[in-house]
Formats: sequence, C-alpha cells, structure tokens
Amino acid sequence: MKRPVFIATFLAAALGAAAQWGPQSRVLTDTIHSSVLNADRPYTVYLPKSFDTDTTRTYPVLYLLHGMYGDNQGWFRDQKANEVLDRLINSGEADEMVVVSPHAGGNPAEEQNGYFNIPGWNYEDFFFAEFLPYIEKTYRAGGSRGRRAIAGLSMGGGGTTSYAQRHPDTFCAAYAMSALMDIPQEGAVPSESPGDKIALLTRSVQQNSCVRYVAEADDTCRDALRTVRWYVDCGDDDFLLPRNIEFIQAMHAARIPVEFRVRDGGHDCEYWHTALYTCLPFVSRAFTR
Amino acid sequence: MKRPVFIATFLAAALGAAAQWGPQSRVLTDTIHSSVLNADRPYTVYLPKSFDTDTTRTYPVLYLLHGMYGDNQGWFRDQKANEVLDRLINSGEADEMVVVSPHAGGNPAEEQNGYFNIPGWNYEDFFFAEFLPYIEKTYRAGGSRGRRAIAGLSMGGGGTTSYAQRHPDTFCAAYAMSALMDIPQEGAVPSESPGDKIALLTRSVQQNSCVRYVAEADDTCRDALRTVRWYVDCGDDDFLLPRNIEFIQAMHAARIPVEFRVRDGGHDCEYWHTALYTCLPFVSRAFTR
Amino acid sequence: MKRPVFIATFLAAALGAAAQWGPQSRVLTDTIHSSVLNADRPYTVYLPKSFDTDTTRTYPVLYLLHGMYGDNQGWFRDQKANEVLDRLINSGEADEMVVVSPHAGGNPAEEQNGYFNIPGWNYEDFFFAEFLPYIEKTYRAGGSRGRRAIAGLSMGGGGTTSYAQRHPDTFCAAYAMSALMDIPQEGAVPSESPGDKIALLTRSVQQNSCVRYVAEADDTCRDALRTVRWYVDCGDDDFLLPRNIEFIQAMHAARIPVEFRVRDGGHDCEYWHTALYTCLPFVSRAFTR
Amino acid sequence: MKRPVFIATFLAAALGAAAQWGPQSRVLTDTIHSSVLNADRPYTVYLPKSFDTDTTRTYPVLYLLHGMYGDNQGWFRDQKANEVLDRLINSGEADEMVVVSPHAGGNPAEEQNGYFNIPGWNYEDFFFAEFLPYIEKTYRAGGSRGRRAIAGLSMGGGGTTSYAQRHPDTFCAAYAMSALMDIPQEGAVPSESPGDKIALLTRSVQQNSCVRYVAEADDTCRDALRTVRWYVDCGDDDFLLPRNIEFIQAMHAARIPVEFRVRDGGHDCEYWHTALYTCLPFVSRAFTR
Repeated sequence: MKRPVFIATFLAAALGAAAQWGPQSRVLTDTIHSSVLNADRPYTVYLPKSFDTDTTRTYPVLYLLHGMYGDNQGWFRDQKANEVLDRLINSGEADEMVVVSPHAGGNPAEEQNGYFNIPGWNYEDFFFAEFLPYIEKTYRAGGSRGRRAIAGLSMGGGGTTSYAQRHPDTFCAAYAMSALMDIPQEGAVPSESPGDKIALLTRSVQQNSCVRYVAEADDTCRDALRTVRWYVDCGDDDFLLPRNIEFIQAMHAARIPVEFRVRDGGHDCEYWHTALYTCLPFVSRAFTR
Repeated sequence: MKRPVFIATFLAAALGAAAQWGPQSRVLTDTIHSSVLNADRPYTVYLPKSFDTDTTRTYPVLYLLHGMYGDNQGWFRDQKANEVLDRLINSGEADEMVVVSPHAGGNPAEEQNGYFNIPGWNYEDFFFAEFLPYIEKTYRAGGSRGRRAIAGLSMGGGGTTSYAQRHPDTFCAAYAMSALMDIPQEGAVPSESPGDKIALLTRSVQQNSCVRYVAEADDTCRDALRTVRWYVDCGDDDFLLPRNIEFIQAMHAARIPVEFRVRDGGHDCEYWHTALYTCLPFVSRAFTR
Repeated sequence: MKRPVFIATFLAAALGAAAQWGPQSRVLTDTIHSSVLNADRPYTVYLPKSFDTDTTRTYPVLYLLHGMYGDNQGWFRDQKANEVLDRLINSGEADEMVVVSPHAGGNPAEEQNGYFNIPGWNYEDFFFAEFLPYIEKTYRAGGSRGRRAIAGLSMGGGGTTSYAQRHPDTFCAAYAMSALMDIPQEGAVPSESPGDKIALLTRSVQQNSCVRYVAEADDTCRDALRTVRWYVDCGDDDFLLPRNIEFIQAMHAARIPVEFRVRDGGHDCEYWHTALYTCLPFVSRAFTR
Repeated sequence: MKRPVFIATFLAAALGAAAQWGPQSRVLTDTIHSSVLNADRPYTVYLPKSFDTDTTRTYPVLYLLHGMYGDNQGWFRDQKANEVLDRLINSGEADEMVVVSPHAGGNPAEEQNGYFNIPGWNYEDFFFAEFLPYIEKTYRAGGSRGRRAIAGLSMGGGGTTSYAQRHPDTFCAAYAMSALMDIPQEGAVPSESPGDKIALLTRSVQQNSCVRYVAEADDTCRDALRTVRWYVDCGDDDFLLPRNIEFIQAMHAARIPVEFRVRDGGHDCEYWHTALYTCLPFVSRAFTR
C-alpha cells in the first residue's frame, strides 16, 4: 500500500530530512594536532551544500570565534549558525562559504581561554601558523585575503578585532559582536599566583587592547586598517557597550571607516544568533568572486 | 584577595547568570493527569520574571502548539521561545505573559499526534475541559477571552486556527505559522488498518479543515470569526504554502480581516523562531490590559 | 456603458483614492494666535481615520518636533509621517492617535529657531501654556500624561528630550532622533551681536543641555526621570552621535532606563522616516488605554 | 569673526548640503527623441556619486518602471528612490549603479499608458531598440545581461515581469512589486471605441499576461526563464495579491525558482519605498562584477 505523496512529504519535512532534497550542508567536528601548543585542539566546521558534489570548487572562509567559557561547537549548538547559514545562502543573501570555529575556551579556571599568546600557550601563533593553513587546505577554503573574513562574540569579538588589526593582510572583513575590546585597569586582577588562568587571560586582553591599538596607530598603520571592512555590533543593554563605544570613538578619531550598530539586547545568545543575519551578508559582500 | 568588579561581572555574564540581576523568567515542565484521555500528559510553561515576586498578579496567557513529531519542550528547546520572550518583554515589545505548550506529539507511528478528537483519544476535549482551566488556575493566567491567545507551528498552526475558529469566545488572537490548514484528498490515506495513527491524524485534519470551515461559514459564524485577530505566516519555500493561500483566499472571500505574511524560508525551526518576533507583539496588542 | 469592477478598482487605487474605502486619515495645517509670542504660529496635525466619524472619541497625542530650518509641514512633506501612521495603525502596530507638529523653524538667520525660551521669544512658555492645551481641546486629544508623548528629530530631538526632562509629569514617553542633546563649548558662538538668532539658539541649547541635566540630577529628579519611557535613536554616520553617546553615558551613570539604538545612516530624511517605524509602536505601548 | 566648526557643520547638515562632503549622487531628467513613437519621451536617471569623478568607469543599470498614472519622476519624487540608493550604496548593501525611469504614463484618459506595443504606439519596441541602448551608451551603464536588471511597481511590475519573461537574455534579475500580472476577463472592457486608451491598455495587459506566459511555457522557454532571478513582492492588503498568487502558483508548477514575499500593506507609495530595501540588494547580488 502506497503512502500518498503529501503525507510522505510532510513526514519527511517534519523529520527535518527535507524541503530541499539532494545535497545538504553539514557540520562536523574534528581535531588538529598543534605542535605550537603541544596539544590536540578540536574544531567545528560548516561545509555548504555543494561541498561534496562540486569537489574541485573552493570557497570563501569565515573564522567564527566563540566567547569565554565557550567551545568550538558553541556557534552551532547555541547560536544555530548553520540554520542561519542555510537560510541566507538559500535566498542568496550570503555566499556559499566554509565557516569554522576553533576551540579557545572551556572552564577558564581549568583551561586557558583566549586567542592571544601567553607564556607557554601561544594560541595566536597556533591560529595563524597551523590552524588557518590546515583548514584552508583541508576544506578547499580561503587561500587569499579577499576570500577570508573573521567574526566573533564577546572574547571572540575582541579576538576578531585584534587579529584583523594586527593581520590586515590576512582578512578582508571583520565583524565584532559584543566585543571584549579591552578590560579597564580597574578590572585588572591585581596580584595573582603566576599560573592563574583568568589573570593571564585578563592581561593578554589588556596587552592587546583594540582601543589602544587604534589610538596609537601611526599613518602607515591607519592606512592598513582602512583596507579591512569593519563592523561593530553591540547591544544597548550589554555591559561591554562602553568598551565598544571607546573603540568607535578611537576609529572615528583615526578616520577609519567602520559600520556601527547598537541593537536591542544584552550579552546573550539570541543577540549573537540575530547578528548572523547582518554578519553573513556583510562578509559575503566583502569576498572577492 | 578581591576579584575586581569588571571580571566578576564578565564571568557572571559569561556564565549566563546575569546581565539582569534579580528575578528571572523560568521554564518548567510538569504533568497533568487527564481523566478524558486516561493518561498523564506533560506540559512546559514559561513564567515571566515577575511571576515569583508579584504573587497576586495575573498574566495573559499564550497557548503555543508544537508540530507533528514535536513535544511540549520543542518550542523552548528548538525554537528558544524563552530567549525571544525575555528579549521582547524586556524591551516592552511584548507583555509579560505565561506561555504554555501541551504535549500532542511524539513519534506518530507510536503515539497519537494531533489536537483534535479521534475515537478513543478526545484530545480537544482534554484541552478545553481539563488543560486550559488547570493551567490558568495553577499559573494565575488567562481567565477571560481578552487575556488568552493561541499560536502554533505546522500541525500546531492548524490546531491554532481550528481551535480559534470553533472557540472564538475563548481566544482573542490566533497566530498560525506554516500551518497545516488542511490535507488535500490526494494526500489522504486510502485504506488503513483501523488503528493506524497517521491515518487517524490525517482524517482528523481533513474533518477539521480550516479552509472548508471558512468557506462554509454562515453570516453568524463569520461575525464570530471577525471577533478574533488572525495572523497567518508561511515561508515562500514551504510545501504548505498552497494550503495557506487557500485559507487566505477563503478568508478574503468571507470578508474576515486577517494579517498575512510570506517571509523567506521553508518548513524549518528558524522560520518559527523568527516568527515569534511578530507573534509575541501581535498577541500582546490583542490582550486587554 | 459600464466599466468593469476590476478596472474601476484599479483606477481608484492608482488615483490614490482607495484600497480602503470609507473614512480616511487627513493632514491639515492651521494657525494658532499666541499671546506669549505676540504672533500667529502655524501647525500641522494628523487626524486618524475614525476622527470624523467617532465624534465623541478622544485620542492619545504625539507632539512631533521638526529640526533646524524645518517647519510644521516637514514631518508630513519630507518624512511622510502620515503614510507610516496609516500603515502602522492599519496593521495594529500603532494606536490611532493625533499627531501634531508646531512651527519652530524657518531660515535661522531670519526667523528664531528653537523650542526654548530666549529673551523676547518665550517659545517654551507658548508651547506649554498655549499650544498644548489648544491642540488637545480642539482635536479631542491627550488630556493626561498617559495619553501624551513627544518625539522629534535633530534640534527637535533635543527639544523632545529637554521638554520631557523638565516636564516629566506631562509626557509618558519621549523618542529622540539624531538629537541635538547639547552643543560643545568649542561649538559656541563667542561674541555675537545681541540679536543674532543663531547665537541665541546656540546658547539656549547649551543652557538646556540634556546631558548636563542628567548629570546634575539629584535623587528626586532621577526618580522623576525614571517615570518617562526614553528612546534614543541615532545614525552611525551622524555628526551628532558623540552627543547622543554622552547622553546615554549620563543616563547609564544615573541608572535611568533608556532604549538606545544606533542604526545605519547619517543626519538625513530617510533616517527619520524609518525611525517612525519604531517610534510609533513605542509611544503606542506607552499610552494608557 | 569665525563661526565655530560645530555650528558650521550643523548648518550644512541641516541644509542637507552634507554629512558626506565631496561628490554626491544626482538625479536628472532629460528627453530622448523616439523615431518608433514619433515623439519626445522624458526620462529620469540616478547617477551614483562616483559617476562624475570616475569618468571611465561603467556601472550596472536598473530599469525602474512606474505605475499607471505615474511618470518618469515618480520613483524619485514619491518613493524617494535616490535616498534609499544613497543609503544602501553607502553601507555597501547595494552596488553603485545607474537607475533610470522611462515615461510610460500620465493621465490614462489622455495619454497612452503602458509598456507594451499597441497599434500606433509600439512602446516595447521603443524601449528595447531605442531607450535601452541610448541610456547605456549615454550613462556608461549596463552593456551586458549580467549588468542589467529591471524592477517596477503595479503596471510597471507587470511590465518588469513580462519584459524579463520575453527578454531573458537582456536582464539577469527582475523584481516585481504589487505587479499587474494580468487582468481577469471579468475586468475586461467589453466594447470600447477603437481609440479608448484604457481599453487598449487593458487588452495589452491581457495579451501579455505574465501568468499565462508561464503556464504555457514549453521546456525550452522554462529553461530560459530559469536563467533570470525572480522576486515577487506584494502587500497582504493589495487588491492585486490574487494575481500575484496566480503567478507564483504558475511558477511553482513550472518549477521555476522565485523569491516570494507578502509584507504588510496595500497598493501604496510606502510599500514601494520600503520594497527598495530588498530590491536594491537583490539586484546588486545578481550583477556580475
């Protein structure tokens, strides 16, 4: 006895198997061994739906950085980045792209969080020397500045901004959400035991202050910063809004163009989920074709 | 040694403990025993942040219906309804309200899905005679038509529409997402064994066709339908769009006002998540104060 | 020979006569004689579509202030406020309301611009003692704080904020767009001839600095400010953004809740036109019913 | 005595002279002589801000068609297309492009409206043989299919769709707003005097029915239609919504991809103004670079 088409379609759709038949995007988690860190590091990557069929095609790449306490799966588990990607790629508002989240988090009392180099844990070196080349080779992604963007939330928004500031030849666009642009001195940890992981993180954020970087940039540096497309997005109830305002003021003073938005919200998942609706078209427009 | 304020705030926020201090909204799952169904039925309810402190206050209520294969937790687990509720209540775009999802799903081969009465499983009777009064008494919610709205997705969008059609004295507003307004005859299951759960569901949807109900409504019925505020929201790639178009055409022919939107998307989680951004303000505007 | 219905409808719609038949909203311009100013002052008012048929009904009122160089017709001519009003009232997103723009502009070299009292031109006295009562009596509008809101752009955004600061018992909500919250001292006109109209305007803005008002507010004043619902909306390319940021910082420091948005755009017509889409629902939610 | 910078900036901005200094976009109206029509025909064209300085650069082009009773200036006077263009080009959401409106309207009792050929007035021939080549040569625009899109409202939405249907080799994208996709037979004018201009227009719309064109398309034609990116946008209160639904149903039946949106609104200026916010990014994404 044959089930009619309608019900079959309905069940398939209800099961999430369908609507679009044929190849689908996928999210996978894997591990890279880092010699720099002397550790295995997991990452999670989104591969667009043509990835498995267009086997010679290369894709632009977006590095998507999680926040403190987060992990490589967070963007896909908590902010459902793959659902927004599927939707915007399907409507044409975003390009097909590879999106990858490295792991720079966990419980900060036990695991070293952060995207910067600290003594004994040169995360930034790992990112640029090992992670980025490996991802781009493995997943037919990026390959040149015009095909590479970076975005992130909170601590990852600070990482996004600082990476793009100090590597403007690597990324064509940077989208910072609710970004930890700096930590004020009164927020510093005055005297910690040498191995205190939160103290190390705090100091690395201050040493890589995104605000001071712009304020102190000379003309050459400013010219380099102007080659990147910048977007800063922070909620009106976010406790990091003052830091983002300082950053915008520094950018304006240095006459470096930057898109700035303050939307409704605080420092929360839904803010970052909705930010993807502007982030993904923004980086897509920046990619060379 | 005292941790500075900034870091404490940051950690708390990062942990999700904060941003707003003080009372928070909460989502809880509990069970009601139904004499009508002769079974225990779970439900999940959102209580707004003032609920535990304003202990004499009553709230408007939104019944939020899941789709086929879904369950009472779906709206909060998959569509993150509580995050959108918190956000829109905080900004004032939605009223503080109680939101509750009953359980009418599960694996349809094993559990009877659906919001309608079928032989031996009078779900609709349970909903109106047992569930609704119990919820409104237990959670200081609803209490009158002007303080009660209904919304749902897919099978729950059909349930929403049909419930509000046949109980216009119960609900002041109905918001149907990607609604199963009907199943065409070619979609019917021609000859099934008597207990086939999907066949029973299919027939109950056809018997309660939302399209036919409007088409056959006499003047008195149309007047009653005009007392409800209707909103129909369906994706342009949704396989149920034709059913929703038929419903809108019937509503127009009967001169019953209805808001109609076709947004980008298919029959998927993210469509329903984003639908909450219009649904919650819509029902809030309909509530009497 | 009878023209068929379709074409008749089409022509009517094309002519702008229709879509909705029956009563329509209207915009009219009239004049009030001011004893305070010893002058006739024009104003423009929007009356919602039920105004002429529900002849005993009273409406909430929104005072909508134009900017420098503007006039009482600007909001309706340049920002098409009536089109947005019709649309949002029709969909239920805004309440039916009376909206009125006084005239406080013109060529600032020849006519005294501004909403504040200056020697010989006590505009603020006129507004509160003559204009507001006259409008509310003539057009069945307002009548109490909970039925009265204020909004404005640029110089009118400063007027909006300052009026609501110093008359929190008069307005329940204030929505400031691209607001002239203050003029920095370096922007001051150092020594002008006594009658210089721009110098007078500049000084009155500085004397009524919205930023300083918050910064200097004592506890009683802060409590009063907390009774108003505040919304500040300014473009990321607006040269007044720094002033709006200072205002928000002062509000945060004083712990007075305020919605803050930075959207894409500069100091231009289209920014204010689009601001109405958030302004009108915002004031509608604030109105008592 | 020097006026301080702040006031100077403010005055300039208030005067609309600025915000951005340097070259600005401009809108100009000019006339083309048509041999086909044996008449002079006015048109209005938007030139992006780099047009006068990048004197060797060529631009993609958007043909923007007005509705019945409209004229070549309507899009810029009534829908303020240039303001949306400036804004979206400035933020990068739309490409710099040339946008041009021909004149195909006026009072339909006196002037022949419409985009189709009728006896003695071969407007479509004029458009493709004279107008399009002249515009693209004169304003360094278009030049190939991938650099040419078309959009329009009401009668111009029908013109947009029909032109792109029958000239899929000319346009890469078509965006139809509130489109007159067809006129039902009951809307036909049964017996008119030969020269009745409205009867001629009605018949030409029926002869070029966009719905029937898709329904009757053979496989070759469908393949050609699939090379165009289609977008259909119609208000939920628009009396033309049924025609647009018929068109979408025909497109779905023919398996030709089309974006479809139903937003809030009727057949009015503000609907078309807001449609530009999706239309301009849509055509920009379609343009080859």
